[in-house]
Amino acid sequence: MKKPLLTLILGLSVGNVALADNALLLQTDFSLQDGAVSAMQGVAFGVDNNLKIFNLTHEIPPYDIWQAAYRLYQTAPYWQKGTVFVSVVDPGVGTDRKSVVLKTQSGHYFVTPDNGTLTLVAESLGIDSVREIDEKTNRLSGSEKSYTFHGRDVYAYTGARLAAGKISFEQVGPELEKKVFEIPYQKATLENGELKGNIPILDIQYGNIWTNISDQLLEQSGIQKGDIACVQIKQGEQLRYSGKMPYVSSFGDVKDGEPLLYLNSLLNVSFALNMENFSEKNQVKSGADWHVAVKKCGN
Amino acid sequence: MKKPLLTLILGLSVGNVALADNALLLQTDFSLQDGAVSAMQGVAFGVDNNLKIFNLTHEIPPYDIWQAAYRLYQTAPYWQKGTVFVSVVDPGVGTDRKSVVLKTQSGHYFVTPDNGTLTLVAESLGIDSVREIDEKTNRLSGSEKSYTFHGRDVYAYTGARLAAGKISFEQVGPELEKKVFEIPYQKATLENGELKGNIPILDIQYGNIWTNISDQLLEQSGIQKGDIACVQIKQGEQLRYSGKMPYVSSFGDVKDGEPLLYLNSLLNVSFALNMENFSEKNQVKSGADWHVAVKKCGN
Amino acid sequence: MKKPLLTLILGLSVGNVALADNALLLQTDFSLQDGAVSAMQGVAFGVDNNLKIFNLTHEIPPYDIWQAAYRLYQTAPYWQKGTVFVSVVDPGVGTDRKSVVLKTQSGHYFVTPDNGTLTLVAESLGIDSVREIDEKTNRLSGSEKSYTFHGRDVYAYTGARLAAGKISFEQVGPELEKKVFEIPYQKATLENGELKGNIPILDIQYGNIWTNISDQLLEQSGIQKGDIACVQIKQGEQLRYSGKMPYVSSFGDVKDGEPLLYLNSLLNVSFALNMENFSEKNQVKSGADWHVAVKKCGN
Repeated sequence: MKKPLLTLILGLSVGNVALADNALLLQTDFSLQDGAVSAMQGVAFGVDNNLKIFNLTHEIPPYDIWQAAYRLYQTAPYWQKGTVFVSVVDPGVGTDRKSVVLKTQSGHYFVTPDNGTLTLVAESLGIDSVREIDEKTNRLSGSEKSYTFHGRDVYAYTGARLAAGKISFEQVGPELEKKVFEIPYQKATLENGELKGNIPILDIQYGNIWTNISDQLLEQSGIQKGDIACVQIKQGEQLRYSGKMPYVSSFGDVKDGEPLLYLNSLLNVSFALNMENFSEKNQVKSGADWHVAVKKCGN
Repeated sequence: MKKPLLTLILGLSVGNVALADNALLLQTDFSLQDGAVSAMQGVAFGVDNNLKIFNLTHEIPPYDIWQAAYRLYQTAPYWQKGTVFVSVVDPGVGTDRKSVVLKTQSGHYFVTPDNGTLTLVAESLGIDSVREIDEKTNRLSGSEKSYTFHGRDVYAYTGARLAAGKISFEQVGPELEKKVFEIPYQKATLENGELKGNIPILDIQYGNIWTNISDQLLEQSGIQKGDIACVQIKQGEQLRYSGKMPYVSSFGDVKDGEPLLYLNSLLNVSFALNMENFSEKNQVKSGADWHVAVKKCGN
Repeated sequence: MKKPLLTLILGLSVGNVALADNALLLQTDFSLQDGAVSAMQGVAFGVDNNLKIFNLTHEIPPYDIWQAAYRLYQTAPYWQKGTVFVSVVDPGVGTDRKSVVLKTQSGHYFVTPDNGTLTLVAESLGIDSVREIDEKTNRLSGSEKSYTFHGRDVYAYTGARLAAGKISFEQVGPELEKKVFEIPYQKATLENGELKGNIPILDIQYGNIWTNISDQLLEQSGIQKGDIACVQIKQGEQLRYSGKMPYVSSFGDVKDGEPLLYLNSLLNVSFALNMENFSEKNQVKSGADWHVAVKKCGN
């Protein structure tokens, strides 16, 4: 009598540990206006009722793969290793882009079409290995006639099974080369005391300008807290903004409406107007053709 | 000593099974801008801290009962039997529309005002039985003075108790006739090789046109993958769109900007422009007065 | 053999009880468009994988501390004692506003910058005690260089540790005076049969007007169900609306488009047009300068 009891208990216990380890995060460009995300969650919950399912965001602008890439880069470091991210921004659904799972060196998993979504996490977290999803074994049963909702039928299903430990990473499918499809973008540089970089994204809600210039590069440039920085922003060859602003710790260090240079929550160089919207006021946007140059004024 | 132990373990085990079985889904037209949804979640969580609570959507346009009905139809099949859906789009709150729980033949539960919200799930999943909520026993205690938030005080509370197994379906209240209040709509038909149907809803985020013509009916019409379909869309008697498009598996099968006929994620006939917005470009909307006719070109 | 078994079982059991007790709710003005909320959730989940994490709302308009205060007041009573609310509407991030945890007499916890966010819950739920967050011990390790995302690095982290029982309330930091920073606002009054009050907020989704006049005060005024109320609404000294409406239980008690006075879900006096938008039609908004006067017509 004791043996089955023990087995039962240990079973429960192991079950609990397993489910505790791995959250499943969903990201799409579907919005939450319709039932698509809920259908994905239903499929995931059907795989394991104890799965911890979170929404990363579903407000990625339609087809904006770059923004999907950025949101993964922005959030993954704050989630434990073993976390499974399912990202479905998939303008090429039904074409021959590969469906893959990336395991990063940090131990996170990313389930997604390999269409550029992995550009930034592959770089920042490192590629451990990449597997192609074998849809023969990893597809919601009964969904074979559906060609347009891989997010539900393949990605959510596979991500949930991986997070719940129903399949191992190896069971996802055959291993591919250690690379992902990358969207090209300008890396940040420091030359003759001048920092150059790109505006990968805006801090949308507040209109702050985020660059891809890291805190280390800023430090190497010699610009220090309290220094006044000369900032230029160009769209292609056109100058869109030119101004001076202090490098400070936070918004409250300048008066309302005044510009500041600060490190954002990812420790990248950013520009803002305290309590106002820099992007709107100066008509500055983000994207591959938006460039910034920063140096200590007077240099 | 062994007996209580065993009881405790089995108690835990049964407890886990019970809570694992039943997710609680909330759907409203409240939006997530204010605290109303959170108050509903608090009431549900107060019933059982282990309840798995999900948002279906809270972005139903205010008072749009039809869209509420559609979202239930779209998502329910992807959630396990036993799942409890609470849907509150309730322009008649405080009037004499009945508060009911529908149990479908598929084993799903729908807690809602019986105002048309159940039209599509009653049809697609089948009616097992309908009970009226007895508000004497199924109402958040202390909420008697509140007449305008049944969503929190009656529906979320009753749905949570049902999902958590605190009450049985029978304890919801008296059984009613096996029918629900139905919103009339045009069924899809096939006559002389021509498919006719309605546009119940748009795929809002992308502007795709969803009809209520099923894959089976399409198959019966003889239109096959690769065939060119002649499509007409009318609002009432007015022709709004007339065009040709291939029946393909997915978006990537046509060039950017070109039209296609495909089966959507519910396996219903749909129209789209690859990477563009069919609805905006052609000013096609959804609703009871929007009709489509589809046949093989040249027929 | 029996002893470890028992320990294991009781351990499981206690674990379940602990996690069941305390939900963690997050509220911000970040919106759900980017990864900020997900990063906060990741930090909280990293503290304890069994934490029940809910979003109160993330749609607070940027910097709108008053609305943050109102949403806490609106929802907290529907969540169990022990619930931890993290509210981050923090225009002063990086300045010297204090980071605090308020424990109310109702047993709820509120983790937030003390910038006015606590105005309404302090009043409605009562102050038990206030502690300042000691950031030396209560800060996500490795986040020391980040000055602009206290929501993630301090508030979500501390709230999660408190909800999960990893720290006691005492371990939050030193106790402060039993008071919070309050935003001044006009209290509701009854004089000579006339009710006066403020419009703290709109029922945004439907355009209903919510006042801060309680059901008790309405009762004291002698206005009873079925009576016709004379309502005036002013912005500062300017009359914006003047009209008559019946005091009824709910929307369905008047015809479509007609005005009504009712008690909202917080049992406060409110005005609406059945199936229409009172706020839009009459250009009535909310805020400190919006006042209402209500009396029985003919008085």
